[in-house]
Amino acid sequence: MLTGKRSPAGAGRPAPAHGRDDSVLLRDADLVLTMDPFYGEGLLGTVERCDLLIREGAIAAVGGRLVAGPDTEVIDVRGKVLLPGFVDAHTHLWQSAIRGRGPALGLYEWFDACVWTVVPRIPPADMYRFVRLSAADALQSGTTTVVDWVPALEYAVSEAYLEAVSDSGVRFVHAAYQEPADAGLAAKVLTGLVAPHPLGTPQVATVAHPDDPDHLRVHAGLARELDVHLNLHLLEHRTDRSADLVARLQEAGGLGPKTLLNHVIHVTAAELDLLAHRGAAVAHCPLSNMRLGTGVMPLREIHRRGIRVGLGQDGGTNDSADMFASMKAAVGLQRAVSLDPAGYPGPEEALYMATMGGARAVGQDDRIGSLTPGKRADVVVLDPAALNLAPLGARPAQIVFGGRPENVTDVFVDGVARKRAGRPTGTDPARLVAEADAAARTLWGGEAGR
Amino acid sequence: MLTGKRSPAGAGRPAPAHGRDDSVLLRDADLVLTMDPFYGEGLLGTVERCDLLIREGAIAAVGGRLVAGPDTEVIDVRGKVLLPGFVDAHTHLWQSAIRGRGPALGLYEWFDACVWTVVPRIPPADMYRFVRLSAADALQSGTTTVVDWVPALEYAVSEAYLEAVSDSGVRFVHAAYQEPADAGLAAKVLTGLVAPHPLGTPQVATVAHPDDPDHLRVHAGLARELDVHLNLHLLEHRTDRSADLVARLQEAGGLGPKTLLNHVIHVTAAELDLLAHRGAAVAHCPLSNMRLGTGVMPLREIHRRGIRVGLGQDGGTNDSADMFASMKAAVGLQRAVSLDPAGYPGPEEALYMATMGGARAVGQDDRIGSLTPGKRADVVVLDPAALNLAPLGARPAQIVFGGRPENVTDVFVDGVARKRAGRPTGTDPARLVAEADAAARTLWGGEAGR
Repeated sequence: MLTGKRSPAGAGRPAPAHGRDDSVLLRDADLVLTMDPFYGEGLLGTVERCDLLIREGAIAAVGGRLVAGPDTEVIDVRGKVLLPGFVDAHTHLWQSAIRGRGPALGLYEWFDACVWTVVPRIPPADMYRFVRLSAADALQSGTTTVVDWVPALEYAVSEAYLEAVSDSGVRFVHAAYQEPADAGLAAKVLTGLVAPHPLGTPQVATVAHPDDPDHLRVHAGLARELDVHLNLHLLEHRTDRSADLVARLQEAGGLGPKTLLNHVIHVTAAELDLLAHRGAAVAHCPLSNMRLGTGVMPLREIHRRGIRVGLGQDGGTNDSADMFASMKAAVGLQRAVSLDPAGYPGPEEALYMATMGGARAVGQDDRIGSLTPGKRADVVVLDPAALNLAPLGARPAQIVFGGRPENVTDVFVDGVARKRAGRPTGTDPARLVAEADAAARTLWGGEAGR
Repeated sequence: MLTGKRSPAGAGRPAPAHGRDDSVLLRDADLVLTMDPFYGEGLLGTVERCDLLIREGAIAAVGGRLVAGPDTEVIDVRGKVLLPGFVDAHTHLWQSAIRGRGPALGLYEWFDACVWTVVPRIPPADMYRFVRLSAADALQSGTTTVVDWVPALEYAVSEAYLEAVSDSGVRFVHAAYQEPADAGLAAKVLTGLVAPHPLGTPQVATVAHPDDPDHLRVHAGLARELDVHLNLHLLEHRTDRSADLVARLQEAGGLGPKTLLNHVIHVTAAELDLLAHRGAAVAHCPLSNMRLGTGVMPLREIHRRGIRVGLGQDGGTNDSADMFASMKAAVGLQRAVSLDPAGYPGPEEALYMATMGGARAVGQDDRIGSLTPGKRADVVVLDPAALNLAPLGARPAQIVFGGRPENVTDVFVDGVARKRAGRPTGTDPARLVAEADAAARTLWGGEAGR
């Protein structure tokens, strides 16, 4: 569908199996974390013992004793926990190509060794394989939406990239970067390939580097022209303070409610005031910040100002798509440096950040992020009857402090099952792994073995 | 065997299946991280493409084209990675009882709410269930040795506790705590129940609290008398500096090569010099320190002095037995606060810390911690052909930054398989979970539901 080379099944929602419509009833969940305070108690909108009905890709109802139609598939979720699919607010899907590389490098050395010199060496077919692997890993781990900052690619590589995302079935935000001189190419990808996709949302990606004045102006202009978000890394490294990047972003007209700022570590109080005033959102990537040694985001200062915060993997910088690990790190990193275990975020706030927080950060909380009837059916089923999550009790904290991707039994995106009973649907992981291995051999040659 | 109530199969090594001896040949591993520089390259003693032979519970040989006897079980481990089982240098197995509890409490508030008031309320049968759950979780995650600091228990509860550990099949260090007046009870448990066990090692547990002068003297004396390690939490909380605990420990005769100190966060340079001079070892528990907001261990200062360091889960303080998460946190926490991604520990050093580091910290590096022929066969098989660990390349960093318990396919303790092909052997996880749930209902009553 996307490029005309694949069947519609890869891109949108597959036709229902013979004899059934596409509705699914998740019956008798032990606990539903709706993330919607109108539907349940507390910040997480908690509801006990209820059903969830999916119809035509949307959440049709959440409640007790819902009635299944004759063609509705009924899934028994007794004992299980339902929550919205995780929204990974900042990632780079191509980076499974570099998992584990540059293990002791800092940000800019790592960019040089693992990013700028690597991306141009990946041909379209191999880009497909790396992206497909990352997207499958995210989906199987319970992430249903990825916000993907994509480096400069040739058009044919972008086609392969988006075909892989599309075939995976994940909901995606594609933030396309190109040098200012090639901004037209980004526009072509965004309007021609991303915007028409039923699960895709276009954004313009940019960079705010001290040595470069043009990018922000050009890209902010393009984002306004296309009426999409501007997505950039900001003040990730301590050396980024050598220029007044926040002021420059503001001057370029790039600081507003449709701005998503990643990392935001080495930031002043006055700058945070400005971000809050302008309504910009941020993506927090604690595991990436730990891996690269970039620092600790002043998350409590950010939250106190009411700035929207999503949680990002930043994989392969973080080498992982495990949102449980990211939630746990988001809680623990703030605590360890503040010596205050009572401050923001607690485990409930981390769950919110990983779902509604991300949806709000990219302006999609009208569609995703909570299990509110009318929203798209991006749903995760979690089985707490596991050696690492038992015994009964204190569920939100248990999920954040002890949950693992293996506890995710079922994943629905736009109402389509991408994981059922602990197994991927419509995907052969062994094949994806073998194809990524082959691509890595091409990319890394003799180095690939170890 | 332990209490006379169970069959020998629960405690020691089960009889071999009919028609086989108990030898196992792991054939054609892609990579073996021996942790022994005499057997392979670098810190991790890396060997490519080789076999590992287990015989009579020990590692008989590591090398190419080993020959299987007629009764040897041969397991094809092509494509897989072998490493020593993880040594969890500090944990509390009973604490699955309190997973997720007190999610925003600091150390001493958490002790009051979740520890001191809870332990006495757990009857023997339920203690068995909680310990059994934790031990199974550890084993399935690749941990083959647990160093377990055990709070004051009645003798009957200690019996149940140790029966659960024994039935699980994990190798264990049991550090028994009792009030000074009841030190005889600790001695009875250690000499009567722990020391005779083929997989058990006794230690004396104590506490170093500013308000209490007696414990260290009495317990250090008992440890010397029994010729075992003294195991204590030291300078975990910032308020622990209100007394000169290191000097007090030294005066009590409790500071030497047979001292294991847990956490050691709020420590001075002069105290670290003394710990190094006296040859004490430490257990680092980064995920616990993050969860409770106790602080960041000066791990680099500790390592620079040559102090032995093991890695501990401190579960359920950390609510998890995931050593991959702990390795990743050990690397990332130091980096995030130092802004230096090149310092200790890198991923290879984290793998060492989680295996040989722990073995050395408890003085058992003659028996465990590396895949050296002659040592006991505590072996983990890891499958990197997974969505989260592919593609080929940079294995140690991929394992530390992206590995998960679900990637562990096989676990051997003392040559006995405790996990095979991704499934527990000799254990029904669903039953363990159901029994722990029942115990939690008794313990927490109406609170248990959520």
